Amino acid sequence: MNQYTGRIARSQATMKREGIDALCVSVGSDLPYLTGYRAMPLERVTMLVVPAVGRPTLVVPGLEAPRVEVPDEVFTVTGWAESDDPIAILDTLLADAGVVAFGDETWSRFLLELQAANPARMFKPASEFMARLRMRKSPDEIDALRSAAQTVDGVVDEMATVQFSGRTERDLSREIIERTIAAGHDTMDFWIVASGPNGASPHHEPGERIIEPGDAVVVDFGGHQDGYCSDTTRMFVVGEAPYGFDAAYEVLYTAQAAATDAVRPGVTAESLDAVARDIIAEAGYGDLFIHRLGHGIGMDTHEYPYLIEGNDQVIEAGMAFSIEPGIYNPGEWGMRIEDIVAVTDDGVERLNRSDRVCRVVD
Amino acid sequence: MNQYTGRIARSQATMKREGIDALCVSVGSDLPYLTGYRAMPLERVTMLVVPAVGRPTLVVPGLEAPRVEVPDEVFTVTGWAESDDPIAILDTLLADAGVVAFGDETWSRFLLELQAANPARMFKPASEFMARLRMRKSPDEIDALRSAAQTVDGVVDEMATVQFSGRTERDLSREIIERTIAAGHDTMDFWIVASGPNGASPHHEPGERIIEPGDAVVVDFGGHQDGYCSDTTRMFVVGEAPYGFDAAYEVLYTAQAAATDAVRPGVTAESLDAVARDIIAEAGYGDLFIHRLGHGIGMDTHEYPYLIEGNDQVIEAGMAFSIEPGIYNPGEWGMRIEDIVAVTDDGVERLNRSDRVCRVVD
Repeated sequence: MNQYTGRIARSQATMKREGIDALCVSVGSDLPYLTGYRAMPLERVTMLVVPAVGRPTLVVPGLEAPRVEVPDEVFTVTGWAESDDPIAILDTLLADAGVVAFGDETWSRFLLELQAANPARMFKPASEFMARLRMRKSPDEIDALRSAAQTVDGVVDEMATVQFSGRTERDLSREIIERTIAAGHDTMDFWIVASGPNGASPHHEPGERIIEPGDAVVVDFGGHQDGYCSDTTRMFVVGEAPYGFDAAYEVLYTAQAAATDAVRPGVTAESLDAVARDIIAEAGYGDLFIHRLGHGIGMDTHEYPYLIEGNDQVIEAGMAFSIEPGIYNPGEWGMRIEDIVAVTDDGVERLNRSDRVCRVVD
Repeated sequence: MNQYTGRIARSQATMKREGIDALCVSVGSDLPYLTGYRAMPLERVTMLVVPAVGRPTLVVPGLEAPRVEVPDEVFTVTGWAESDDPIAILDTLLADAGVVAFGDETWSRFLLELQAANPARMFKPASEFMARLRMRKSPDEIDALRSAAQTVDGVVDEMATVQFSGRTERDLSREIIERTIAAGHDTMDFWIVASGPNGASPHHEPGERIIEPGDAVVVDFGGHQDGYCSDTTRMFVVGEAPYGFDAAYEVLYTAQAAATDAVRPGVTAESLDAVARDIIAEAGYGDLFIHRLGHGIGMDTHEYPYLIEGNDQVIEAGMAFSIEPGIYNPGEWGMRIEDIVAVTDDGVERLNRSDRVCRVVD
């Protein structure tokens, strides 16, 4: 039995339990998770229809059908020709389905067309349904995440030896991209280099600002390697740290380590957020930690579970997520430390192993 | 008046004419077309709400709000905090909207949540609505497409001088990626290298097949440069062409040129498809031309208009699209020739200018 057979069987068991008649997934990672095939994100619709009972059907543009590999006849492939109406094909496949779980990232256009084809059919987001399947990783998936983490850890160490001052953020981000691809990543997904006051914008886009002595620099990057994601953040200061930085960094370091140490099966997602947030608030920086503690990671950079106040999701062995508190001092500097961790049977494994101290660079 | 003011004014004029109360756009190119801002394709929703009358509002995750630049107060930015419910914010903005045009590529999840918030509100795909805005390019947009086309034309000419035989498709595709980025593209979107029998699969993914003498090789690649797309296909043969190839290529060349020459304002999209298809069918290859003639191009590789049988869309000055007939001989070889063309006031401009002959390589 290949992994896809097992995943589809698990999805069908869940569907029967929850009264869902069919599952539809398209672009994004739900489809490759279930089939090994990733849809082209284009106007010709690709959709896997998984009935609660029976073999799934992958509806795919005819000219992309030769790309599909079917492991052990796990699903049937229906290629549609340029003159066919793929919505009609999908509507027929869903004929007996009153309640359909619909993949999050599927284009709205196709949902609206399917709703118009049969207004009585009920669609609901497949978000939590797919989360339950994908949240607990297999040992192979954890291995893939660990390898991706090791790659970016190596790049972090390399970056600690390069010149920062006098270069633009964009220039530095290009070096990070090149080094990470050279080190084994297949694609890069993001590459934040946020220097000086730009560091106070958590999702800053690297620009033409020239890095100068006295800057703190947030470096947060990640990509895909063998289908799984990396995501790490480390801090650099150019020579002397700016005013107030060192004291805050000590708090952040403590908070990040404490939240990591608190990870184990049975705690809740929000309790981990609270561990870091309480330490940061106690030290007087509470208003400057403006985002959640972390997000799940796997085939997507951001997936379930989300470590955020109000999420009472119980943490289980096999889950993988980021621990990334930050302190953002508007107009001055920002800081964040981020590791990916995996939940073990009785605790936690840090997949990112590079030193969490702030590196001093030229 | 900046270009975004004009585009939003045009969208509102169309909305009033068509009885649409609001337009919602999110991930994909509709949003940057109207605002200059591209949403991060993540689980935190970004959505522009354009009412039929009044200033639009961009609802954006708070930690991404600093990324947004607002040209001349064209729209208002509402950042939502981690503990806010963005669907509730959007539902309030849409309070007076009974009919909403909804961006094609927006995640289904957000549509389903908005529908649940107000089941009486009617959503319809914004596909054709946005197509009417985006199909006719401005002179600046045509300039951008021309520059992108020139870049890939240069790479085609470079590739005619490199060794093909003995290398894998994947190796050759990596060289194309590197050369195109070095020549000025910001990103690559696709890189088809389909050799020998693989050429008969139009969307073949370059793999480990080693290219050998006697192979015909389809090379089809493109990416983004300054926000606009390139897309070209040229043919290469390694030494001697395979059996039957040369005769078919002459037909394909003639069909591609004839369809290009037929482009002018006033003809229909399907009539252009027919020009190429009739020539190919007449020569006996009709069953081997298995896809439409072409697709519009602009900020997206594939956009309106589509040159396909059944589409009576009238071609207008300012439109830009591909002309890309192909002949696919299963198990043996495939061939395709593709140019991007722009419709002028009285005819056509080929944006791709590299020679359309099949190049002979080692």
